Formats: sequence, C-alpha cells, structure tokens
Amino acid sequence: MTRLRPSWVAGANDPETDFPLNNLPYGVFSTKALSPRCGVAIGDRILDVARAEAAGLTGTRDLVQAAKWNPLMAAGPEVWAGFRARIGALLAEGSPEREAVAPLLVPMADAALHLPFDVAEYTDFYAGKQHAINVGTMFRGPENALPPNWLHIPIGYNGRASTVVVSGTDIRRPVGQTKAKEAAAPSFGPSQRLDIELEMGAIVGTPSTMGQPVTVAEARAMIFGYVLLNDWSARDLQAWEYQPLGPFQAKAFATSISPWIVTAAALAPFAAEGPEREVPLLRYLVEDTPGLYDIALSVEMNGQTISRTNMRELYYSPAQQLTHHASSGCAMRTGDLLGTGTISGPAPDSYGSLLEMTWGGQTPIRVGAETRAFIEDGDTLTLRGHAQGDGFRVGFGACSGRILPAPDFFKETT
Amino acid sequence: MTRLRPSWVAGANDPETDFPLNNLPYGVFSTKALSPRCGVAIGDRILDVARAEAAGLTGTRDLVQAAKWNPLMAAGPEVWAGFRARIGALLAEGSPEREAVAPLLVPMADAALHLPFDVAEYTDFYAGKQHAINVGTMFRGPENALPPNWLHIPIGYNGRASTVVVSGTDIRRPVGQTKAKEAAAPSFGPSQRLDIELEMGAIVGTPSTMGQPVTVAEARAMIFGYVLLNDWSARDLQAWEYQPLGPFQAKAFATSISPWIVTAAALAPFAAEGPEREVPLLRYLVEDTPGLYDIALSVEMNGQTISRTNMRELYYSPAQQLTHHASSGCAMRTGDLLGTGTISGPAPDSYGSLLEMTWGGQTPIRVGAETRAFIEDGDTLTLRGHAQGDGFRVGFGACSGRILPAPDFFKETT
Repeated sequence: MTRLRPSWVAGANDPETDFPLNNLPYGVFSTKALSPRCGVAIGDRILDVARAEAAGLTGTRDLVQAAKWNPLMAAGPEVWAGFRARIGALLAEGSPEREAVAPLLVPMADAALHLPFDVAEYTDFYAGKQHAINVGTMFRGPENALPPNWLHIPIGYNGRASTVVVSGTDIRRPVGQTKAKEAAAPSFGPSQRLDIELEMGAIVGTPSTMGQPVTVAEARAMIFGYVLLNDWSARDLQAWEYQPLGPFQAKAFATSISPWIVTAAALAPFAAEGPEREVPLLRYLVEDTPGLYDIALSVEMNGQTISRTNMRELYYSPAQQLTHHASSGCAMRTGDLLGTGTISGPAPDSYGSLLEMTWGGQTPIRVGAETRAFIEDGDTLTLRGHAQGDGFRVGFGACSGRILPAPDFFKETT
Repeated sequence: MTRLRPSWVAGANDPETDFPLNNLPYGVFSTKALSPRCGVAIGDRILDVARAEAAGLTGTRDLVQAAKWNPLMAAGPEVWAGFRARIGALLAEGSPEREAVAPLLVPMADAALHLPFDVAEYTDFYAGKQHAINVGTMFRGPENALPPNWLHIPIGYNGRASTVVVSGTDIRRPVGQTKAKEAAAPSFGPSQRLDIELEMGAIVGTPSTMGQPVTVAEARAMIFGYVLLNDWSARDLQAWEYQPLGPFQAKAFATSISPWIVTAAALAPFAAEGPEREVPLLRYLVEDTPGLYDIALSVEMNGQTISRTNMRELYYSPAQQLTHHASSGCAMRTGDLLGTGTISGPAPDSYGSLLEMTWGGQTPIRVGAETRAFIEDGDTLTLRGHAQGDGFRVGFGACSGRILPAPDFFKETT
C-alpha cells in the first residue's frame, strides 16, 4: 500500500482528510469573487486550476478553462497522467512553484460546488448480487429472485441524464402512478415509498465508435474517474410501472453525485478482486486484472449512520459494465455516467437501500430517536466513501440530498 | 382540410412532393460548396436559411447559424410561429422577396443531409396497442400479453441518444449475448433476429423544470416537430436481456430518423382523435383536443412495400407521453427525442415490425422474389410517411438504413 505523499497545503497531511496529495480529485467551484471554474481539492483548500493553467503552471492549454471537466476528460489517458503529475508536483512538499501556487488556493469553506462535468448519458447497472437477490425476492419471490441472465450479463438500463445533480441539491418528492394490490385502478399522487440506492458512478473519458465494441482492457482505459452516486428511487411507482420495459419515472426525478471526481489513477493502489465467478463468463467480459476497488462506503440519514458496505461487493466491475454497454456497437461518449447498481453487503446493516434494510417497509429501522420505513419530507440522506491508505485516505466527499415536499400537481388521487 | 399554398419554387406545387409550401420542414444539409447548415425543404430545393438569416430575410438573429436547429427549438412557440410565417412569405407565389431568395435555393439532389438537431436524450414509448398485444403474446403468452399497467400508463423506457443517426447512415449488425431455449449457457455473436420498429419521433423544443410536472396542454406546446423513427431492434438479444430492467443492448446500437423535422404547425390541419379509452385515464393524462395526426406510414424492404399503417393507431399521443415523462419531476430538455413506440395496424400487412409480420420468424414474408424472416446483411429498410391534403401532401422524406455485416469481435460463440 502506498504511503502519504506530503503536501505543503494546510490540512492535506491530516490522516482524516478526504483530499491528501494522493487524491487530487476534480470539481467545479465558485465563490463570491470567482465564477464557476475547475478546481482540484487539496486538504481544506481548492486549487483554482483555471487560473493555474492561464498562468502557465499546468503544462496544458485550454483544457480546464470551461466550468466543466469534459475537455480534459476527452483528451485521453496520456494527457490525464501528465496533468495529474503536474498538479501533484505543484502541491508537493518542497515544490519550487509554491509561491506562485499559494495565491490560487481557495478555502473550501468559502466555495459552492457544482456539477463537475456535463453528463452525456446516464446508465444504471444492477451489478450487486446481494441487492439483486434482495429486490428480486421482494418483487418476484425467492424462487425467481436472481434472473436467469444475471450471472452472465451485467444487467443495466438507460437512466435519465437531465436530472443528475450535485450533492447538496434539494430533491423534490416525486409524484406518479401507483396501485395498491387491492385497488381496482391506479391512483396519482406523491410517492409514499421514497428510497435511496447507494452506488458508485464511473465516468467515461475517451469515447468509443458506433459499431465497434471494446475489450475490457480498452474499457478500463476509457474510464476517467469515479463519484459516489445516489440513485433516488420511488419504490411504489417502480413496482407498478416496471413491467415490461424497466424502471422509468420511478428513477427519472433525481440522481445525486458527489462533487469530486476521484480519478482512476488515485484509486489504482486500492484495486481489488471481485468475488469468484459462479459460472464462467463469456470471453468478452473476462477481466484479467483486479477491476474493483477497496472503498468503504456508508449511508447516513439525518446524521445517523444506517449502513456500511464496500465497493468490493460488486459482481461486475465498471470496466466489465462499460464493455457490455458498448458490446452491441453502442457508441460511448465523453461524460457518460455509469452507475454500478446498489452495493449491498451480506447483512441488513450493510444493505444499500431502505427497501432492503426495512425489507419492503415491514421492519422499520431506528434512526436516532425516530424510526423510518422510507424517506420522510425534510430527511437528509448522505453517502460517504473512502479508500484507506497507510496514514491517509482517498475520499469522495459527501453525496447528500434533502427531500422537499411533493409539488402541487393534480392533488386528487384518482 | 386546407388547400395547397402555391409557391414560386420549382416542384413545390406538385401534388406528389413531400415538401409543398404547406410543409416547410427543417433539416441540416451540405453541398460541395457549402458547409453543413440549416435548410428548409421546398419542392425539390432547399432554402439556405443560414444565408437567408444573415441577409436579414428571416426576421431572426443568430437562431439558425449553427448547423443544428436547437437554438430555434429552444426559443419557444412564438418565435417558431414568426419564423415559419416569414419563411412561408418568402417562398409564397407573388413574394416580393423572390429575387433575393432565389439565389439561396440549392437543388436537393446536390445536398447531403445531416442529423437536424442535437439529440439531448432519447426515450422510446410503447404506445401502439396492437404492437403491445402482438409482442406480449410472443414474449409472455396470450394470457399476459397486455401488461396490467398498459391501459393506464404510456409505458416507456430510456433509450440511447449517442446512436441516433440520420437516414442514409449504414447500420452495422450488432453482436451480443443470446441464449437458445435448449442451450445450457448463452453465446456471444452477431444477432440473428435483426428487426425494425416503425415509429414516429416527437422532438421537444422548450424545456421543463426539474421537480415540476407539466399538463398535457403544456406538453403539446413544448413539442417542436416530428420525424419518422426506426428503432432498430435485435430480438434475440432482447429476449435474453430484457428481464428485469428492460431493453438495453438490443436497442442501443442504432436508431434512424428521417432528415426533415416536420413542425407541429405543418401537421395541425391533420390532427386526429385517438381510439376510445377502454378504461378512464387518470386526470393528468386526459387530453381534450385531438392529439394524433392522420399520417399514412409505410415500410419498404429493398424497395418493396411490406407494410402500411397510420399514426392514428397509437393509443397515447405524443403530448400524453411527454406529460407522463415529466410527471415525476423529470426535467425535459430542448432536443429530447420521444419515440412513439411501434405503430401496428390490425392485420399482418399493417404491422410495424418483422417480428410481428413473420410472427416471431415462423411465417417469413415475401419480399419481391425472396423471402425474409428477419433482416439479412445488405438489406435496406425504408420508412415513409405523409399527411394527405386536398391536392398536396405534407411528407417526411425517407427514413432509410442499410445493414452492414457484424464487426469482427470475439468471433467464437461461447
């Protein structure tokens, strides 16, 4: 395991910070004085890389002048590596550029964080086996829990990119059609079973060509970085709508991501094997190197931790998911966001959704002095995640969202 | 029914042209001399509206200078109406601007046509009842053909925008996982059951806000125009992958659209009622005015017509689909493309897919001197559509694509 790389920046050598020099994640920030721009988190500061590039400090030109990271993402792995090495050198202990760089550091406490990249399209996978078994048992019964294709295909569906929002954005409770089992007809109103899904998101940097599948190795090289991802879900809408074409409005109202893109390079020391294959994979999906990362993940509701799990619980890696995504000839683009699917561990206190933790709402969980089956208006849900190094951590920052009451819209229920 | 509006442009008053003055559809074209730009079809000519705007002839500024229609689409219904009225005046018989406009007309035969707008996201609905019954019978048996939600919800799923291509683009046969019923495990290779879906696509002009549903009347006003849409489908991939989260790679490899956006204004005289409701709709979906259009549609394979149907066969209108799409609070954006779902009539010669025409491949159809169960390499599939006026028609042009052999990629099948 690698050791802490010391930095001259305040807070960056603190073993509890998410943002040591080993991390250098990419976000978009603004302050009262500065319009939204690209920044790199270091300790409790943000390096204004737009100004750093303009000052000739980054070795790049016009790659981080937009208030999104897409231009750098599209530039490919060699440019990513050069940029990361250069930012690392600027911020390392003993850097000769310290005096030029210091004025470009902004206190994180003064900054507002924005969506770090333009989301081209959003796809959500279903690659956590315990989650698939849990949900399958509840929706279809234990005998049909894991669909027959599940051990062969990284099952996924296209989600909605227009409602991917950055952590801190309030989420309005969705309205929609639901049908109680005993009811003769559906009704329309606010979701009563609003839930989270604890996921990670892989972000595509370099694109692929329509009509040309990619190998797992090519897919791995296309991935720019990762975020935490909360795939908010309205379980009552989902149960009524999802047959035969999959989730639609139950997932379309919001997806929250953490504000910092943690690069594949920063996570490389924490690469981890997935679980054993239960059946052999088709050759196009075989991955020869460890495709997951050892990332500790947790869910908080209103400040109380209600679940802890790890990215290693996934059955398919992001590179395998991306390979399958492109396998038909589907063109992948810079800014595509691929949710891993809910990451549930083996026991209820490691499940990644309230649906699972409360077993469909039947066994509410304790949250401080209160209990919850599903999310109530005013509740704040927060995901956290980090990889643990030797005296340092590579963290994601929080992925947080508070639920606002449903909009007034056709209030009657039938 | 409205009558032909006479134009001074060659061919525009021909009763067989798709592009009389009544139509004025929007495309993007290039010639040897002209880079890609916005154009309006009129008879067998294209009006170079980029140059027309620059010359002060259109009454707009910087709305059609990009080689996409998105800026005008985002400008809203009042601007759309003003622009259409102005273009109509320029091209009408007796126009005082004829001498200024004539040099801006390009022969359609000299032009290459491009995708007319940037597709923000692509959603595909399932709003044809005969199609849903046919496919449901084949995939799930006659007793479960129409899902219980179908008469209440315009069922839809998110598709893939990165592979929406303009008519004339060759389509590579997709590869993917399939599993024969008797096989112990799936295999990987070229699709053997490649199909079309005859659809129309509605294009969102003005956006909606995240967290705010829209009414059917608001949704109707948001729709900029329509295209023909072929939702290419790999039935063998689809059958194996689609449970439980819906179609994914079976549809992700390509979607073709016709090159001309026919505006809602041009189609208004052809508005038509949909079928009777079999059960009452929830109030948010009730549409008080005719939401469909009387548009004759056909499918050709290698120049032979194999099916004829009409947009009136849809059970849900595009405005109802858009309303449902936004109902959860899902933000809709300029450039969103909403496929209607396959439009099948009551009999096999009016079905909108080969899957239905050949009943799952069991009864191949005659195509000239040959027969087909599904599409073979080299086959060209073409959709056509038009609304019939009194001595004129409002047509879409062709939506055509030829199938190329599958890519070389992991040729072994297991």
